[in-house]
Parts: sequence; C-alpha cells; structure tokens
Amino acid sequence: VKFKSPPVNSLSLDFLTELSIGLEKLENNRGCRAVIFTSAIPKIFSAGLDITEMCGKSTEHYAEFWRAVQNIWLRLYGSNMVTVAAINGSSPAGSCLLALSCDYRIMADNPKFVIGLNESQLGIVAPFWFKDTFVNVVGHRIAERSLQLGSLHSAPEALQLGIVDELVPEEKLQDKAAAVVAQWLALPDHARQITKSMMRKSVLDRLLTHQEEDVQNFVGFISKESIQKSLRMYMEMLKKRKG
Amino acid sequence: VKFKSPPVNSLSLDFLTELSIGLEKLENNRGCRAVIFTSAIPKIFSAGLDITEMCGKSTEHYAEFWRAVQNIWLRLYGSNMVTVAAINGSSPAGSCLLALSCDYRIMADNPKFVIGLNESQLGIVAPFWFKDTFVNVVGHRIAERSLQLGSLHSAPEALQLGIVDELVPEEKLQDKAAAVVAQWLALPDHARQITKSMMRKSVLDRLLTHQEEDVQNFVGFISKESIQKSLRMYMEMLKKRKG
Amino acid sequence: VKFKSPPVNSLSLDFLTELSIGLEKLENNRGCRAVIFTSAIPKIFSAGLDITEMCGKSTEHYAEFWRAVQNIWLRLYGSNMVTVAAINGSSPAGSCLLALSCDYRIMADNPKFVIGLNESQLGIVAPFWFKDTFVNVVGHRIAERSLQLGSLHSAPEALQLGIVDELVPEEKLQDKAAAVVAQWLALPDHARQITKSMMRKSVLDRLLTHQEEDVQNFVGFISKESIQKSLRMYMEMLKKRKG
Repeated sequence: VKFKSPPVNSLSLDFLTELSIGLEKLENNRGCRAVIFTSAIPKIFSAGLDITEMCGKSTEHYAEFWRAVQNIWLRLYGSNMVTVAAINGSSPAGSCLLALSCDYRIMADNPKFVIGLNESQLGIVAPFWFKDTFVNVVGHRIAERSLQLGSLHSAPEALQLGIVDELVPEEKLQDKAAAVVAQWLALPDHARQITKSMMRKSVLDRLLTHQEEDVQNFVGFISKESIQKSLRMYMEMLKKRKG
Repeated sequence: VKFKSPPVNSLSLDFLTELSIGLEKLENNRGCRAVIFTSAIPKIFSAGLDITEMCGKSTEHYAEFWRAVQNIWLRLYGSNMVTVAAINGSSPAGSCLLALSCDYRIMADNPKFVIGLNESQLGIVAPFWFKDTFVNVVGHRIAERSLQLGSLHSAPEALQLGIVDELVPEEKLQDKAAAVVAQWLALPDHARQITKSMMRKSVLDRLLTHQEEDVQNFVGFISKESIQKSLRMYMEMLKKRKG
Repeated sequence: VKFKSPPVNSLSLDFLTELSIGLEKLENNRGCRAVIFTSAIPKIFSAGLDITEMCGKSTEHYAEFWRAVQNIWLRLYGSNMVTVAAINGSSPAGSCLLALSCDYRIMADNPKFVIGLNESQLGIVAPFWFKDTFVNVVGHRIAERSLQLGSLHSAPEALQLGIVDELVPEEKLQDKAAAVVAQWLALPDHARQITKSMMRKSVLDRLLTHQEEDVQNFVGFISKESIQKSLRMYMEMLKKRKG
C-alpha cells in the first residue's frame, strides 16, 4: 500500500475511508497474506490525522471522523496479515499510530526524519488506545515521557527507544521490507495469527468495549473553544512555515 | 522543595505530614506549575521511611503512619504539577519511592550514591503500590529481581536500569533540574496533565480501592514480633556503624 | 536438579510427573531453600515438551499430559525456593518455559546454544501462560516478535534481549549458579518469598482460574488433523536430520 495523497498524506476522512475499504478487501483476499505500508511522497510517511477535519466542523462530522480513525486502527492492529511499515519519511501523531500498529517497523536511516505521538504539542491528547499501542511497543516509562512531552524522535533515537525495529538506507528500504515479509510468511499462518491475536486481544477489546464512549469523549474534547483555538493557531503556524 | 530534616531526612510522621500539607498548598496554587525535590543535607537525598515510627509503637500509631505514607504517594504520583527529583545523595526505600513517583529523575553522577527499594534487606516488604510504581518505571523483570534482592544500585547502574533518567555532575544538578522543568512546562498544561493522568490512573486507583485493606495489612505485618525483632536488629546495626 | 533423560531430556509425561513429585518434596523440605536446574546431557538443556505425547494419542492422554505441563509450571513459577536455571545447552519451547519460570537464568557462553519459545515454527501455539511468563521477563514487544516468529535466539542474543540474565563460560556455569543461589539466600526468606509472590500472583492466578478451559483448548487444538499432520512432518524432519 503506497500512501499518495498530496501534499503530505494527511489522514483525512476520505483517505481513511478509502484505506479502510482497501484493507478490508486485502484482509478478505485469501491470496493476500501481507501488506507493506510506505509513502509515494518524498520526506513524509504521512502527516497524521488531518487537522482540518477536527476544526470548525459539526459535532456529527467529528464523530464520523473519529469512528473512521478507530476503524482503521481496529482493522490494522487486529489484522491477520503480516503488516510492515516501511517508513520513508517523517511520521507524526496518527501516522505514527499506523506504524506502531504494524508487526514490524523499518525506517529510512535519515536523522531528519522524525516519528512520535506528538499530540500534546498541539494541545490535544492521544486517546487511551494510542497509548496502549505505544506502551505495547516501548514499555510504560518511555511512553509516559514521550507522550507527555509530545516528542518527535529522530530515526536514530526512535531505534534506540524501540519505536522502530531497524534503520536502513532509504534506497534499500523497500527491499528490506520485502525480505522481512518473506521471513514472517515462512511461519505457518494459523500459528502466527493465533499468537498475534493473543498478544493484542486485550488492547483491541478495550477499545471495542468503550468505542462509543471514546467517540463522545473525543467530540466533547475537540468541540471545546479552547481546543479549537489551539488547533487554529497550530494551522496558522503551519501555513506561515510553508509561506 | 528542599528536604531538610537532619541528620538524614528520615520520612517521619511529622516530616510526611508537613510535606503533604506543603504539596497540597502548591497543588492548589495555580501560580505553581512545577516542583523540584532535592536535599539540603550532603550525601543523602532521604534515608526513607523512619524506622522508629515502625518499631515499638501502638497499632494506632502504625496505622496513622502508614496513612501518611499512602497520602504522600497519592498526592505525588497523581500530581498535576511537573515533578522532578534532583537526587543529590543516596535514596533508599521510601526515599526511592518519592523519586520514582516524579515525572523525571536526575541523579548526581557519583558512584557512592545509591538508590533502590531495599525493603527486603530489612526483612520487610515493599507493598503492591511501591511495586506498581517501580514496574511502571523499569518494567517487570528488573523490578522483580531488584525487589527480591533488595538491591541498592549505584548511580551509574541506576541509569543503566532506567531507575533514573540521567546523571549529571553534582554541581550542575540544580541547573539541569530547572532546565528539565522549563522543557516540560513548555507543553500546554491541560494536554500534559490529561496524558499523565491517563498513564497513572490505573495504578493510583488500585491503592484507592484497597487503601484501608493496605493499612490493615501493614499494621498486621509490622506488629509481628519477628518483624519487630528484625527492625530492632537493623537499628542496632545502624547505631554501631555510626559509633 | 540434573535433568537426565537421554537422548535429549524431552519433557515426557513420565519425566514431568517425576519432576513434579521431586519439586513437591523439595518444596516441603524446610531444609531445602534453593534449587539449581541443569542438564547432565551435553549440548542440550532440554528439548522441550515431548512431541510423541502430543501425536497419535487419545484425547484423554492429551488432557493428562497438558495437566502435567500446567502443574510443573504452577509449581515452579510459584515456588517459594530460590530457583536458578544453569542452562548448559539449547533450550527450546517447553524447556525455555522452565528456564523463564526460574528466578535467575545463567547460560553457557556458546553461540551454538539457542533458547526461545519456538512453538509457532512447529505450527503450534504457546498458550497464554507461556506468553505471560515471557512478557514478564522480556516485555511485550520482544515477546510479540519472538513468539510470532518462533525465534530461537543464540546465547549472546538471548542475553541482549533479556531472556537470560548472564552468560558465563560453560566450565564456570555451576560455580556461578551456586554463587547466585548464595546471594539470593542471603535475604530473609519471608521477605523474598512475599515479594516473589506479589510479582507473580496475577499471572499464576490467571491460569488457576482458566485451568480446565486451557486443557480443553489444548486438547481441541492438538486433536485437529491439520495440527497432527504438522507434528508428524516435524518429527519426520527430526528423524532425517539424525539419520
């Protein structure tokens, strides 16, 4: 799967819906046993959740958007396929969540590329299932510190913290991803799938049990005038940077 | 906050009560957003819980003392403020718990300074919430081994195990702590606070749900003649060392 | 305890029953406070669960065998004694579980010796309590990856991942194990035992609560024709290798 939604692969409602349908098709296609995620856009894996979907819209829109985010994660974190992130650019916030939900993460060895759950920098908060996914990858202490500071880690730092599994030169990233997929597919599917489910079920179930509550929580939080103001300021800053 | 209770900053009932009132005031003072803990006494951050409070006293006294220990931890681990431990001396047992409950731990780079939950060396047992706090910092395996052996780790070892976040030369400790506070305060308060609460709530709730049971458990354990004997022997040993 | 069941210390029903009775005797012998596990057979600590017990037998036999596996683990993981694994050879699958259930693991510094929970390589699945034990030692991420791939790690890699606590030259393994036991026995028994129980109780209770369900789950899984076929193929492969 190549993310290609210029300029920065923002995870808009349309993008998430299309991705969800695509993943569902692959999941149900018994000939497809693995998927590699990468970006067709230089320097950016994905910019994360599209802030324009969270700003100045109706509460119904916020709820619909959030359900789409939940659905992608449920599908990806619980996928029976082997999932590999070939991270060939920066990967903040929601984009980092996608990477963390894969079975294996390879990142281009470029210290300019950063990755992390930096929500708190924007004045918003990663929900509990972002946190659970992160803790399952890096442990409680690293997650606690990184989430509170909203840290974006350079590729070498991400490797050291365990956020990604290995770094390779960018030109070798796709070959390496294919090699990793081959290694994982060498295992009997049913044994690998049952094992994966055993590792992830409790965290998946936690969102499934609280899914609607989590939507309401998001809508209530994002609708606050103070949060809307934070997001508008952040978007202004992004525009100025580009300008 | 500078601990200054000669000779060794033992956490007596009076000291804990004063600290609790002080922390409550700071917590309620909206102008105060961060607190740094350090010691005014050379070579010792704090000696930990005052053993004289646990030895030869009434069960009522033990219960009162233990509630004070619980309250400090609930206040500190659940604080909305940025909390930094500037550990400028040794930090055993209850003193280590205070450090582990902060958001960030900086220790003076002196291999003679030690830190750890060494309760089992004294024949007593760190309760489940000491353990939960420790596991959240260093993970299950390091906690299991260190708690069973009652290990006191030198500063370099503590860094390697993740018990502290960094070591700096003692003369730079306070400046570094101030710089860390500035870094953490650069984040929007509400996002940082909600994130912190999300990371720590389940462990805090566990004590809140079992608080009175934990008091009774402590009182029952500490009142045993065998435990009292262990503590008296330990105090004798300390006195001889000083002599 | 020296495992000596040629040719490869397979954990057969007889072997497990004998080991269980032996451990129970030691546990009830107040003069015995520690136990070291090692192998009397060169190059192999133990080959793990005996596959012949899981292949071509009755469902009653499978159930009896699985209860024996559960009982060994419950006894070992919950032992009041200090338990040290002196791993002087390879230690796959069920053999790795025994090592992981000890308080401390020392492995011979020989890169040809491997250790890991490689069940998925055989098309079978490590049950949740194997997984819980593994996660408690190495954390969630390393366990997730290693279990899905059914990895067997060389001794140096096992040290790096935290599967074992230290490597020593094979000729010094027994002396080192004795030294470790002495170090752990220097602590007051009751404090060490209560602490150990506190660290392990939730994982032990999880199997105790689901013990019969876990037996039925194993019997149902292992009785499948597809699984039986996998195991027969694996045994054929082993025979050819030897031949």
